[in-house]
Amino acid sequence: MRGDVIALDVGGTRLKGAVLDERGHALTTLERPTRATRTPAAVVESILGALADLRRRPQAEQAVACGLVVPGIVDSVGGRAVWSENLGWRDVPLRELAARRIGLPVVLGHDVRAGALAESRHGAAAGYRNTMFVPIGTGIAAGMVVDGRLLDGDGLAGELGHVSVGHEELCACGAKGCLEAVASAAAILRRYRSRSGAELGGTQEVVSLAAAGDTVAGAVWTEAIDALAAALAMASSLVAPEVVVIGGGLSLAGATLLEPLQSRLDSRLTFQRSPRLLTAALGDRAGCLGAGLLARSAMAETVGVR
Amino acid sequence: MRGDVIALDVGGTRLKGAVLDERGHALTTLERPTRATRTPAAVVESILGALADLRRRPQAEQAVACGLVVPGIVDSVGGRAVWSENLGWRDVPLRELAARRIGLPVVLGHDVRAGALAESRHGAAAGYRNTMFVPIGTGIAAGMVVDGRLLDGDGLAGELGHVSVGHEELCACGAKGCLEAVASAAAILRRYRSRSGAELGGTQEVVSLAAAGDTVAGAVWTEAIDALAAALAMASSLVAPEVVVIGGGLSLAGATLLEPLQSRLDSRLTFQRSPRLLTAALGDRAGCLGAGLLARSAMAETVGVR
Repeated sequence: MRGDVIALDVGGTRLKGAVLDERGHALTTLERPTRATRTPAAVVESILGALADLRRRPQAEQAVACGLVVPGIVDSVGGRAVWSENLGWRDVPLRELAARRIGLPVVLGHDVRAGALAESRHGAAAGYRNTMFVPIGTGIAAGMVVDGRLLDGDGLAGELGHVSVGHEELCACGAKGCLEAVASAAAILRRYRSRSGAELGGTQEVVSLAAAGDTVAGAVWTEAIDALAAALAMASSLVAPEVVVIGGGLSLAGATLLEPLQSRLDSRLTFQRSPRLLTAALGDRAGCLGAGLLARSAMAETVGVR
Repeated sequence: MRGDVIALDVGGTRLKGAVLDERGHALTTLERPTRATRTPAAVVESILGALADLRRRPQAEQAVACGLVVPGIVDSVGGRAVWSENLGWRDVPLRELAARRIGLPVVLGHDVRAGALAESRHGAAAGYRNTMFVPIGTGIAAGMVVDGRLLDGDGLAGELGHVSVGHEELCACGAKGCLEAVASAAAILRRYRSRSGAELGGTQEVVSLAAAGDTVAGAVWTEAIDALAAALAMASSLVAPEVVVIGGGLSLAGATLLEPLQSRLDSRLTFQRSPRLLTAALGDRAGCLGAGLLARSAMAETVGVR
């Protein structure tokens, strides 16, 4: 498809936008807080305002479409943001609202699935047909590419953070045993605080303390890795990725995370394919780049271009 | 695609074949034991002999292709039967051997994925875009249709029997905790025997004993249902099926299995889509019908017909 696209990735705390050319290069970028207030309506207005800002920039003159990606449950066919725990909305017709505001066709997608698309086309998983992208931050989710196609499942696929790994702690979703409740960056900090009484600034401090022999930090970190290995083993049995790209804040731990995780995952699998674990290559640009890819691919389908 | 197809489903104990017309109706059928001896070579010869038998029948005169489905790990792109625990083979170029024997193009596929295709086109899951077919017999596997497409994953997707549901029993695969080790029909009978000393003829007897108040049978049955609920909850989080079709011998228990399983599955899921559980509609014909669908769809791709 010819022409540039406007791309916006709506995160829990930041909006990251850009105008992207045909090769995915940013002609101009935007970054700002997601919301001034905590009401869903204010968040929607903040998103529409960011899109309008990008649309008005001279670099957007050749833009022919817009890709918008959000967290939570997304009905990409109907163009509706169905639910987000972080942003508080329910069933917002975001595609239509955005299209009306900026006068361009808009594709609405899911942030993690868009990130998976970006990592599998241009990032760490480029060249593989069966991949999984697992950002680990406030929460945990998975974007899965199987047989070269991104799985959508009516916008519901990929809730890896809510598979049970067999513990008794309660998750924010209401269930017990969820991966996210012990292995997200937020859970690691919360669990360290509840056992030690000490508040840390980030998971890197837990990793450093564990390396220095702090037994509480060591236990919390080991439990997180074990839980991740259990969940990735399940996913490997079910969808057989060749590579799993770990992203999000926790991936900054690099080999300190990936080496023990790879070894525990390998030891859980017998005849199944054990995926190679890699850290994400695109960082926090994955969602925005993926939003651009979604817009481009939807437009290509519309005009019959491959 | 015009023309009839030869279809053969290779089970652990029986070969089930047919010549199918364009609507999937059987013009003639074949059923015989899979093997006279236990060597992989004898099994392969038995398969080729059954295909040659079908090919020679007058009803096969219009046959233009053949679909052959086998258990285990299947490389459908390369046409190789990579591995089967039951049949003992390793890396057999079955597609080429079969094509040479019968002089027709052959598609090699996986029995459970073929069954999933048949149930989702003509069986219990007809009309749904996101479905899962889970035959429960000697083992447990899953054929998954997501966004209307059958997942293959290089022939490795769908090993639901080998996700961990958190117990300490050893599975034949070498891992601990596998679903299959407590919830397959074979495991249910084995576990009843090891706790009671009594040998039963089938899982229906376990169900009847449990209903009559036998505490050992009740415990074995309940543990199997809990394990199935755990595994289906995990699969629901990951690939979000609308319906799950339960097949194989265990599905003959009907509502005795499905009602408690549905209720335990529903209670494990919070915000995720809870799939409706249904019993298979095509019985032991699913694999053979699916083999026919695979042959037809591969030929249609080759000749450019939709």
